[in-house]
Amino acid sequence: MQFTAAQIALLINGQVEGDATVAVSSFGKIEEAKAGQLSFLANPKYEDFLYQTQASIVIINQNQVLKQPVHSTLIRVEDAYAAFAALLSKYQQLVSEQLTGIEQPSYIAPTAQLGENIYIAAFVYIGKHAKIGNKVKLFPGVVIGDNVTIDDNTILHAGVKVYNNCQIGKNVTIHAGTVIGGDGFGFAPLNDGSYKKVPQMGNVIIEDNVEIGSNATIDRATIGSTIIHCGAKLDNLIQIAHNVEIGQHTVIAAQAGVSGSTKVGNHVMVGGQAGIVGHLTIADGSKINAQSGVSKSIKQPNSIVTGTPAFEYTAALRSQAASRKLPILEKRVMELEKLVQQLLAERVTS
Amino acid sequence: MQFTAAQIALLINGQVEGDATVAVSSFGKIEEAKAGQLSFLANPKYEDFLYQTQASIVIINQNQVLKQPVHSTLIRVEDAYAAFAALLSKYQQLVSEQLTGIEQPSYIAPTAQLGENIYIAAFVYIGKHAKIGNKVKLFPGVVIGDNVTIDDNTILHAGVKVYNNCQIGKNVTIHAGTVIGGDGFGFAPLNDGSYKKVPQMGNVIIEDNVEIGSNATIDRATIGSTIIHCGAKLDNLIQIAHNVEIGQHTVIAAQAGVSGSTKVGNHVMVGGQAGIVGHLTIADGSKINAQSGVSKSIKQPNSIVTGTPAFEYTAALRSQAASRKLPILEKRVMELEKLVQQLLAERVTS
Amino acid sequence: MQFTAAQIALLINGQVEGDATVAVSSFGKIEEAKAGQLSFLANPKYEDFLYQTQASIVIINQNQVLKQPVHSTLIRVEDAYAAFAALLSKYQQLVSEQLTGIEQPSYIAPTAQLGENIYIAAFVYIGKHAKIGNKVKLFPGVVIGDNVTIDDNTILHAGVKVYNNCQIGKNVTIHAGTVIGGDGFGFAPLNDGSYKKVPQMGNVIIEDNVEIGSNATIDRATIGSTIIHCGAKLDNLIQIAHNVEIGQHTVIAAQAGVSGSTKVGNHVMVGGQAGIVGHLTIADGSKINAQSGVSKSIKQPNSIVTGTPAFEYTAALRSQAASRKLPILEKRVMELEKLVQQLLAERVTS
Repeated sequence: MQFTAAQIALLINGQVEGDATVAVSSFGKIEEAKAGQLSFLANPKYEDFLYQTQASIVIINQNQVLKQPVHSTLIRVEDAYAAFAALLSKYQQLVSEQLTGIEQPSYIAPTAQLGENIYIAAFVYIGKHAKIGNKVKLFPGVVIGDNVTIDDNTILHAGVKVYNNCQIGKNVTIHAGTVIGGDGFGFAPLNDGSYKKVPQMGNVIIEDNVEIGSNATIDRATIGSTIIHCGAKLDNLIQIAHNVEIGQHTVIAAQAGVSGSTKVGNHVMVGGQAGIVGHLTIADGSKINAQSGVSKSIKQPNSIVTGTPAFEYTAALRSQAASRKLPILEKRVMELEKLVQQLLAERVTS
Repeated sequence: MQFTAAQIALLINGQVEGDATVAVSSFGKIEEAKAGQLSFLANPKYEDFLYQTQASIVIINQNQVLKQPVHSTLIRVEDAYAAFAALLSKYQQLVSEQLTGIEQPSYIAPTAQLGENIYIAAFVYIGKHAKIGNKVKLFPGVVIGDNVTIDDNTILHAGVKVYNNCQIGKNVTIHAGTVIGGDGFGFAPLNDGSYKKVPQMGNVIIEDNVEIGSNATIDRATIGSTIIHCGAKLDNLIQIAHNVEIGQHTVIAAQAGVSGSTKVGNHVMVGGQAGIVGHLTIADGSKINAQSGVSKSIKQPNSIVTGTPAFEYTAALRSQAASRKLPILEKRVMELEKLVQQLLAERVTS
Repeated sequence: MQFTAAQIALLINGQVEGDATVAVSSFGKIEEAKAGQLSFLANPKYEDFLYQTQASIVIINQNQVLKQPVHSTLIRVEDAYAAFAALLSKYQQLVSEQLTGIEQPSYIAPTAQLGENIYIAAFVYIGKHAKIGNKVKLFPGVVIGDNVTIDDNTILHAGVKVYNNCQIGKNVTIHAGTVIGGDGFGFAPLNDGSYKKVPQMGNVIIEDNVEIGSNATIDRATIGSTIIHCGAKLDNLIQIAHNVEIGQHTVIAAQAGVSGSTKVGNHVMVGGQAGIVGHLTIADGSKINAQSGVSKSIKQPNSIVTGTPAFEYTAALRSQAASRKLPILEKRVMELEKLVQQLLAERVTS
């Protein structure tokens, strides 16, 4: 898809300076953009690049003063960054809307129900009694189990697997390779030291507007549901165990893990590679720093914790700082011991 | 599949109270169950839910006294939890046994050998000279390399990939997206600072009754075999490096990793996000706590270790507790220094 | 494929002792090898196995003295280990070169361009305008997005997914299940506590001679490119966030993660499960130990850091050692306090 400066100016309500017929087909940072690309200048630090860039079109702020001649066509708008971001979103929507139809070979069980304007790529598998909403997009290699429901406008990228009976809401995006609804890790120890599997009969419910990264794993509940509530954002390689609940608009960074039956509140932020023990409750608005290991429930909303085991942030920082000075503290204690011994010896001899 | 209260009572040797013709088709927790679901009451804490539940059928203990009228059909048995768990297992077996046949399109090399009563889903790939045992189930998108053997009753969920020459035993379950037999991470440094790949010619052997979670990775040996011994249970997103051995009935929680050539003993428990350095030996029955980093072999059976680097559990707890009080300890030392200086000064002046 | 001792001796310029017509079809460690396998003896510690091994052929050093009769056919060479490693490499190349052709069913967009002598397995998906170089191998279930370029001799193992517009160089190997080019984790907080997605319009560039393990995730840039430079080696389950750069010949062990916009230098070594915070710079030649959490840029080349937050290695070791002795230090301080109080009391009363 190509767009001229004139077309873009219309979309973002801007004024063209230069050749309005110049066209672009992709986007680039101002310091890297090539001919045929659209860029923007918002941060004054990058102004020098404006005079050097090879971008065919650059969106700039209304009030941007030019100190040198510019080779690119310019489009002036109120807020260059906001206009650029809005264009990106519109572009993605446009590209996305063009993607419809059912490619072959695909496998769709005769009892599956398909919505309108959907995209089903080649090598997609849809199981029995699955219900796929309108405008849903299933990329190559997606596997939808029996009785799964996927609501409108949801996008499952290549190789996402959804086990039987799971439910996925509207406007959900799940990135490639993620597994929804694998068995929870439940085994009962037997007397001989071996383990007997506890059947995992529940499912996973993913509510509206959730986004999940690539190669993450969200296990089905033992009974009942593992639930990812509305608007939560989960990054790549995240582990969500059975019967966990993740609150609304909670954000979890890559490689973090939440153990079984833990309830994470709303608007919580979990840092990368952090871990949360099972059967805990994490209060709304809490922040769990990267690589922390949370071993107790967090009851106070908006708490900030860090470390393994995690505790209150500023106390943890003080303890970390003290820990760095430990070898020095040890020397100070040794010195004190010498002096006190000396004082004691003098006392005895005096 | 639907079952009536009468049918279920027969299966679990129970007595029906209420309408024996009521039928259920799924399972639910007593606090969440809906009409058409089967539930159970075992924990007295949940008794109140018995009088409110919408479950069509509830399994209860023989001696359960009813304080209010109950809307559900009841089935009384000796041990409600055990009966419910047994039902779940029977149900899963029933569902599983119904799944047979070869869906199309699938790709099966002409030299592959297939057992009886197997299930091969659409988009499954089976390489040359592979041997698939009886009652094996391969879900959509499973990839079986050349010369792979998979023994009876084993289940590979959607998108599991098994590289050439690997061997998988009986009654093994591997969840979606897991990779068995990728190359070990072996590179020899060259003089110019680049690396030369060390060919990874070995394989992976997974013994009987092993279960592995979703999106885990188990690398092939450089030469010889990486071995997961009988009955081991591995959770999601686990990394097992080349030439590692995991002992019988050892349990490893999600996102943990074991580095190359390490031998983990039998009946070991490894917590989530823990890591074990390469070329170590971990004694039988050891417990490695979550997020620990094990940097030395554990020689004493039944050891418990924690922390990074991991050391003996109670000592680690004591050190952690002391670490929390470090800023206070520092103040105490400062106070001592003042007092000792005062004493020294007095001595000099006296 | 079978090779006789005579054929192998020719390949590695060795001399046969014993039956030169004996043939082997696979490789084994000398302590485990079976009939029909080729092995080697380089380390004198393993010499006893030479007299017991069932390997059909064993490669040994020129000057190896035999203390007992040997059942295997021997091939004597200057350096047994180097000769064996060279054989493995030649064997893998031979096996690899035999793999060509396009299996069915596969999905290849009509506008895709395919090189010569390629292997495209069944269930491979190639999107619009993708360019696939010569001798490229795409294993079953690989998904190549629109406009992706893959240069000569590159191997993508089963189920690798490459999103639209990404570029992969020559001689690259990516193991099964890895995802290249998923959306970066970019969300802007809104006033109501929910998040708005920041479109991720950039791509991933993987340069020549890179190897990436299984089930790793490398996110596309917001704008511009996430870049894995020439010769870098990344292990399984690694997370590389948007706009990261990984330097030439840098090695990253399993389950490590690099957050957004961080630039990791050349010849850096990152240990397993380590994490690096976003927007940092890591100097060339640095070593980051396993499970470390790097929260500040590393400016000094060849630095070694450890711990969370990571700091200089020997200082960290000293602090760790001191930390272990903390409970003892506390007792020493308590003892000092008693003595000083005693001295103070004596002073007052004297």
